[in-house]
Amino acid sequence: MRRLTTVNTRVEQRRRTEDRILTAARQLFGEQGFDRTTIRAIATRAGSDPGLVMRYFGSKEKLFAQAAAIPADGAIEGSPEQIAEQLAAALTAKLADEPAAALAALRAMFTHPEAAEEVRAAMTAQQRQVAAQLSGDDALVRSGVIGALTLGLVISRHLVRLDGLDASPEELMAVAGPLLEKLTTG
Amino acid sequence: MRRLTTVNTRVEQRRRTEDRILTAARQLFGEQGFDRTTIRAIATRAGSDPGLVMRYFGSKEKLFAQAAAIPADGAIEGSPEQIAEQLAAALTAKLADEPAAALAALRAMFTHPEAAEEVRAAMTAQQRQVAAQLSGDDALVRSGVIGALTLGLVISRHLVRLDGLDASPEELMAVAGPLLEKLTTG
Repeated sequence: MRRLTTVNTRVEQRRRTEDRILTAARQLFGEQGFDRTTIRAIATRAGSDPGLVMRYFGSKEKLFAQAAAIPADGAIEGSPEQIAEQLAAALTAKLADEPAAALAALRAMFTHPEAAEEVRAAMTAQQRQVAAQLSGDDALVRSGVIGALTLGLVISRHLVRLDGLDASPEELMAVAGPLLEKLTTG
Repeated sequence: MRRLTTVNTRVEQRRRTEDRILTAARQLFGEQGFDRTTIRAIATRAGSDPGLVMRYFGSKEKLFAQAAAIPADGAIEGSPEQIAEQLAAALTAKLADEPAAALAALRAMFTHPEAAEEVRAAMTAQQRQVAAQLSGDDALVRSGVIGALTLGLVISRHLVRLDGLDASPEELMAVAGPLLEKLTTG
C-alpha cells in the first residue's frame, strides 16, 4: 500500500507540474509569440527548471503543440434548432472566458506555420462535424460562415477589444444567437 | 518649363520608389511578422537600398505604420437597407482580393502592440460610423458584431483558409449578406 501511494503521489505531482508548465507556456506564447518565448522563461514562470521542461515535453515545438491544442467543443448533433443551441452554448463559453489555448494558437499562427496548421485542423474538424448535420447545397459554406463568425467574435472581443464587444456574453448572444439559428436552418 | 519637368519627374520617381517599398514591406511584414522583417530585406525586395528606405520612412516602426494603414471603406450612410448594401459591397471586395494592408496589420498585431492599436483604430472608426446610422438600444453591439463577422470572414478565408470559405465571393455573400441585413435592421 505504501509503495502504491508513493507512485500515485509521484504521478500526481508530475501531472501538476506539467499543468503549471502548460499554463505558463500558453501565457508566454500568447503574450510574446513563438519565436520570442524561451524554454527558460516558461520554466521560470512555472516555478520549474528548463531541464525538466525538456524532459517532460521534448522540444519547444512539441510543448507549443500541446499548449495550443484547442479543446473540442463536444458533440454537435440533432435538429437544426438543437445544433444552433449547442453552438450558442459553446460560443457563450468562449465569450465569457478567454479561451487561452485558442488565443495562444491564434496569436502564434500568424508567425509560426505549425500553429496555423493547428488552428486550421481544430477548426476544420469542428466545422466538418457541423456541416455533416446541416442540409442544403450550401451546408459547407454555411458551416464555414459559422466558424468565421465564431472566430471573428472571439478575436474581436479578446484580442482586438473592439467597441461594443465588451458587452456581457448574454447581450452579445442576443445578437449573435439568431445569426447561428439562421445559419443552421439555412 | 524644363526645370518644372525635372522636378515633377523627381517627385514622380520618389513616389514610385515609395510605392515599391510599401508593397515590399506589406509582403514581408505579412509573411514574417514585424520582428523578423529587416529594412535590408525590404530594400532588396523593392530593388532599393536600406539607406533610401530609412531616408524616406525614418524607421522600421514608421514604415510599418504606413504599410499597415488600413484604407477606410468609404462613407456608410442611408437607410438600414442601403447600409447593408454598402457593407456587403465592401465585404465582397475584401473576399475577392486579399486586403494586403489589413492582413499585414492583422498578422503583426499579434506580436507587435503598435499593430494592434492600428487595427483597433481602423475598425473602431469604421464601426462608430456604422453604429451612428443604426437605431435601437443595441446599435453598438450590432455594429460590433458586423465588424466581428467581417474580420472573421477575412481571416478565415485568407489566413486560416477554412473549409467552405474557398467558395466564390458571390456564394459566400449569398450566406453572409442576409446576416448583414439582419444586423443593420436589428
